[in-house]
Amino acid sequence: MIETPYLLFLGDAPDALSAKVAQGIKDWRPDNCVGQFRMDGCKADMKLPDMTLEEAKAAGAKTLVIGVANRGGKISQGWKKVLVAALEEGFDLASGLHNLLRNERDLVEVAKSCGRSLHDVRIPEVEYPIASGEKRSGKRVLAVGTDCSVGKMYTTLALDAAMRERGMKSTFRATGQTGILITGEGVPLDAVIADFMAGSIEWLTPDNDPDHWDVIEGQGSLFHASFSGVSLALIHGGAPDALILCHEPTRSHMRGLPTYSLPTLEDVRDLSLQLARVVNSGCQAAGISINTQHMNDAEAKSYLAEVEKRMGLPAVDPYRHGAERLAEALEAL
Amino acid sequence: MIETPYLLFLGDAPDALSAKVAQGIKDWRPDNCVGQFRMDGCKADMKLPDMTLEEAKAAGAKTLVIGVANRGGKISQGWKKVLVAALEEGFDLASGLHNLLRNERDLVEVAKSCGRSLHDVRIPEVEYPIASGEKRSGKRVLAVGTDCSVGKMYTTLALDAAMRERGMKSTFRATGQTGILITGEGVPLDAVIADFMAGSIEWLTPDNDPDHWDVIEGQGSLFHASFSGVSLALIHGGAPDALILCHEPTRSHMRGLPTYSLPTLEDVRDLSLQLARVVNSGCQAAGISINTQHMNDAEAKSYLAEVEKRMGLPAVDPYRHGAERLAEALEAL
Repeated sequence: MIETPYLLFLGDAPDALSAKVAQGIKDWRPDNCVGQFRMDGCKADMKLPDMTLEEAKAAGAKTLVIGVANRGGKISQGWKKVLVAALEEGFDLASGLHNLLRNERDLVEVAKSCGRSLHDVRIPEVEYPIASGEKRSGKRVLAVGTDCSVGKMYTTLALDAAMRERGMKSTFRATGQTGILITGEGVPLDAVIADFMAGSIEWLTPDNDPDHWDVIEGQGSLFHASFSGVSLALIHGGAPDALILCHEPTRSHMRGLPTYSLPTLEDVRDLSLQLARVVNSGCQAAGISINTQHMNDAEAKSYLAEVEKRMGLPAVDPYRHGAERLAEALEAL
Repeated sequence: MIETPYLLFLGDAPDALSAKVAQGIKDWRPDNCVGQFRMDGCKADMKLPDMTLEEAKAAGAKTLVIGVANRGGKISQGWKKVLVAALEEGFDLASGLHNLLRNERDLVEVAKSCGRSLHDVRIPEVEYPIASGEKRSGKRVLAVGTDCSVGKMYTTLALDAAMRERGMKSTFRATGQTGILITGEGVPLDAVIADFMAGSIEWLTPDNDPDHWDVIEGQGSLFHASFSGVSLALIHGGAPDALILCHEPTRSHMRGLPTYSLPTLEDVRDLSLQLARVVNSGCQAAGISINTQHMNDAEAKSYLAEVEKRMGLPAVDPYRHGAERLAEALEAL
């Protein structure tokens, strides 16, 4: 678990897109952010107060989060000076970069001598159990997709926000590195050892109040040859009561698999429900989330109406229209 | 890859069952075994020549394989003297024990100074790729089961032997530790990082002759809440042309999951085919392997006849009756 609140480190981000992790934290957990730290030439801006390390410390920040990715996921020498100073100032560091903080000897030494923690959210910090398959109290909803990167994280973050807005008890459960940095905790499922995948998701979504919902970030797709095993472990470990089906309609093939076409939403619904019902016989499809970023307003509206009619489930683009109707559908279950 | 042939280390095995890894090697790869090494009090016997380290070395043995498991998977102090002497004599060591050779400092030091290798087959020794989903040449058959531990390894070893007996081109592909020790190579799939599971199986079953069969050891079950993700990665990474359905009919619940009943063979056939056809549209169910160890001869015979009639596929217990008819079914595909 990463200590909040954060100072967001934007480094020398060459553009806004390279700071999308910081943007995600700012968008979804603004209360976790006391300010931003930018180096010379930084082209990203979270519209947070620019702070020195000392100012951020005084404002209560506990962790400096690397909210920027540079080419190759490297920890550049230019950043090192700031990172070392942050440790000396009393900050923990958190990173989702491919290159790990723990492999940078200088950072490890300074962290040790200052008694600070280095969080590499790509790597599990917990020894997860083997899944027991036992029923837990509380409710769970999982995003499942026709493909990777169709908007499952966005959907679940928006759904969690909409549910809390309605006064429902809800917790977003991160299963990927960006989600973990946003919330400060979660399971980096793609880095978990095969035998413990489902168990890690049971661990992430323990017994809870009967009217509490875990909103579980999905990963991959049952129909994606590279990552389907991860998706199935999420279904069997999460034991969802409800599924949100996620889709990006303009994609011509599965991400990274040029010869594979996408399954239909019906395929995903039927197969996901069949598998989910092995562990939770009451699982239902509750709604549909469509990523319409490559459509204009009219196209999006007409596509959503068509899907909603065809599938008999509320269909929304949570980015364009919010996730209210999905939250409503869960409340009605 | 573990160098063959082996000297099988039986240690102070308290009974025959504790040496079942050695028994598997002896049964399936007798040519890999030059002899056995037994300590005082050893109650197991592979009916191989008892040899000293020197004799085994002279007979050509390259690796001392720990073919025995003791309580807790520990490497006992009693064994250490032999293991150290074996390294000094020029043997590599191979083990599937829970406690790793590489974590025993004395063994690591001696191995290093003698230039020998320590193989812990529970741990991957390869950096596997992400699965590409691309079609490979050659054919593949995978064992899928209603549950864990229903006889998938035995089935695939017997099938591979029967295919080679018929003059077919066939290679057993190990995906678990015992299978890896038997053949000297394979993927310890339960220990692979989630994102690389399917890729590790593609790596294990590369392009081959058009008439060559990879006979892939199955793991877990799509219907087993703890390990289903591993099973799906095998299906999508293996891209099988044919499936052998494996079942143990007297089991009252899923292994380790007391509240879960077993799926039917029809359930396993239909779901496995649907998922396999995502990557290989021609995949077919070719035969059925029933583990009848808890039935008498008459019960086994009648059960197999009933299943064969019901499913329209050859149904055998390869332990009792051999895997000939499964090999025949693959040849006819």
